[in-house]
Amino acid sequence: MSRCYSRGMGDPGRLHAEGREARVAVEEARESVARLLGASARQIVFTSGGTESANAASWGATRARPGREFLLAAVEHSCVREGSARLGSVASLPVDGTGRIEPGAVEEVVERCTAQGAPPALVHCQAANHEVGTLQPVAQVAEVCRRNGVWLHCDACAAAGHLPLAFDELGADLVSVSAHKLGGPAGVGALVLRRGLRIEPFVVGGDQERARRGGLENVPAIVGFGTAAEVLVEEGRLEQEAAGQLGLRNLLEDIATQVDDVEVLGDRDLRLPHILCVSLGGVEAEPVLLALDRAGVAAHSGSSCSSESLAPSPVLDAMGADPERSLRLSVGWSTTGADVEAFADAFAPAVEQLRALRP
Amino acid sequence: MSRCYSRGMGDPGRLHAEGREARVAVEEARESVARLLGASARQIVFTSGGTESANAASWGATRARPGREFLLAAVEHSCVREGSARLGSVASLPVDGTGRIEPGAVEEVVERCTAQGAPPALVHCQAANHEVGTLQPVAQVAEVCRRNGVWLHCDACAAAGHLPLAFDELGADLVSVSAHKLGGPAGVGALVLRRGLRIEPFVVGGDQERARRGGLENVPAIVGFGTAAEVLVEEGRLEQEAAGQLGLRNLLEDIATQVDDVEVLGDRDLRLPHILCVSLGGVEAEPVLLALDRAGVAAHSGSSCSSESLAPSPVLDAMGADPERSLRLSVGWSTTGADVEAFADAFAPAVEQLRALRP
Repeated sequence: MSRCYSRGMGDPGRLHAEGREARVAVEEARESVARLLGASARQIVFTSGGTESANAASWGATRARPGREFLLAAVEHSCVREGSARLGSVASLPVDGTGRIEPGAVEEVVERCTAQGAPPALVHCQAANHEVGTLQPVAQVAEVCRRNGVWLHCDACAAAGHLPLAFDELGADLVSVSAHKLGGPAGVGALVLRRGLRIEPFVVGGDQERARRGGLENVPAIVGFGTAAEVLVEEGRLEQEAAGQLGLRNLLEDIATQVDDVEVLGDRDLRLPHILCVSLGGVEAEPVLLALDRAGVAAHSGSSCSSESLAPSPVLDAMGADPERSLRLSVGWSTTGADVEAFADAFAPAVEQLRALRP
Repeated sequence: MSRCYSRGMGDPGRLHAEGREARVAVEEARESVARLLGASARQIVFTSGGTESANAASWGATRARPGREFLLAAVEHSCVREGSARLGSVASLPVDGTGRIEPGAVEEVVERCTAQGAPPALVHCQAANHEVGTLQPVAQVAEVCRRNGVWLHCDACAAAGHLPLAFDELGADLVSVSAHKLGGPAGVGALVLRRGLRIEPFVVGGDQERARRGGLENVPAIVGFGTAAEVLVEEGRLEQEAAGQLGLRNLLEDIATQVDDVEVLGDRDLRLPHILCVSLGGVEAEPVLLALDRAGVAAHSGSSCSSESLAPSPVLDAMGADPERSLRLSVGWSTTGADVEAFADAFAPAVEQLRALRP
């Protein structure tokens, strides 16, 4: 990326040497991202990020199947929920206490809609939840969708790069991923399309990305995305990164749950390796976040105080958890043992001090 | 940008120190971009680029005024044309031989639509043409729109950073700009909104940009956009850059037009300082582009051979020029006298050689 910025980068749509060089860089990155996702390069459409990718999936589906419903659970990311709700009516899929979508429930709704002569425009099923890490039964949901001729979009932004993901095993028609969630830069993502699937593009104006996404390609960011993918497809590398993250996450989990009335949210077993979400019995998240921040730990919460929208997390709400009393930690390639120690030193005192203040 | 990438950047929507640092960086960039465009920071919505900005303008207008027409000329950029045509019907505005939109024609169409009880959803009028550089009468078109209560979007991607542009003087309700056209990075742009104007966002999912554009902010690119804007708002700097570009462009123009039957396209006087588009009498563009490329000059054409869409430029077509026999050159902050010399050495021999080959 640094080389792209310092030398300048041509427009990959042009015939001249600078354009051809940029084209090569983009196509090499596309190959790497495709390999990471078990897809072929032609299936990859680069976008400005996971949010745009998910918006594009809903847009493409509703343009192909106008007037039809979207099926999704409240645990989907807001880019999935809002990107669908503005385009058509939404039938809500139930989740269990770990935030898991029930394939049986999907089947019931899909078959009911289909029997009424109005199969849904699109079913959404994330690969894993972005707040609690619970893995979703995408392949089973895909089976239901395929049987009924209904398209499936899988938001894999939280999971890609942290779990081995093969496009064909997921069985979705459309998959969204984001570069910055897997070690790449912000401002770039991909929408992966099933072979042969053509949908109307969301961002239009120019025939970039084989006329599937208009606008000058963000070449440096695409190169950064490709480089992150290239690292992750090295033999054993993804498993090694995931194991390291799991080790750190489990340390954080042990530290957190040693405090009374702090419980893990989400599925304890079938869960992303790098996310920890806990409930904080009797303690509001905001002062805990501030205490952690003073200790150099950047944490987050599903509480309304820590959201731009000032609304509490609908994910935790759908699971029956209390967003105002939740804490979320993620680890990544740059997380160190010292970060875990900083959390260990700050967390219990913060929670206990706050509890001592209660009337 | 390099500092953002090497140190890592937090999510500006978070409460922790890393998030607050990113927030400060984004808001400083917003101030700089606002100053460049004569707007206040609150009017600036960062997007993934000019294409998304223009798509968002059409989307916001059609959601606020559903079922109404768009008014635009064929000389608008494809992101304006395609971003509108997919959402509603389009009434086409005529242009003259220089590619200029006629305010009288806009008035006629707007008043006719309004008299029929269906004022247009949106009128588009670019600040300057991206292919030939002709400046458009935005203020006059804005006056027509204001008088009729119709919204105006101005695509200023080609003009911003090359001409002094003040939002209030343009008089548009919505203005699109792109960072990479003014020395900033690819992957970021802005949609500038009139004070008090609320439109439904185009990219949704998260309340970033005061709930006007969802998705994690592309902080490094926004910082790069801000830095480019900061340079251009230095006292006299934009005028100095424009004068330098005009000098180089005029040299290129003199060299090109010394060749028989090579004519300047667009308005010779009211034109962007950095763009030169010429017609090549009796010569196809493609072999000329290849000869220039061999000489180290990256040029472009409105011809179908040099476009991803394999369709000739509708801009030149609307002006009555022949896209297949056109050549476009742009100069920028990195263009040197040596580049001009390389063009001088290669252009006339290429054209003359090709003409000699004609039967």
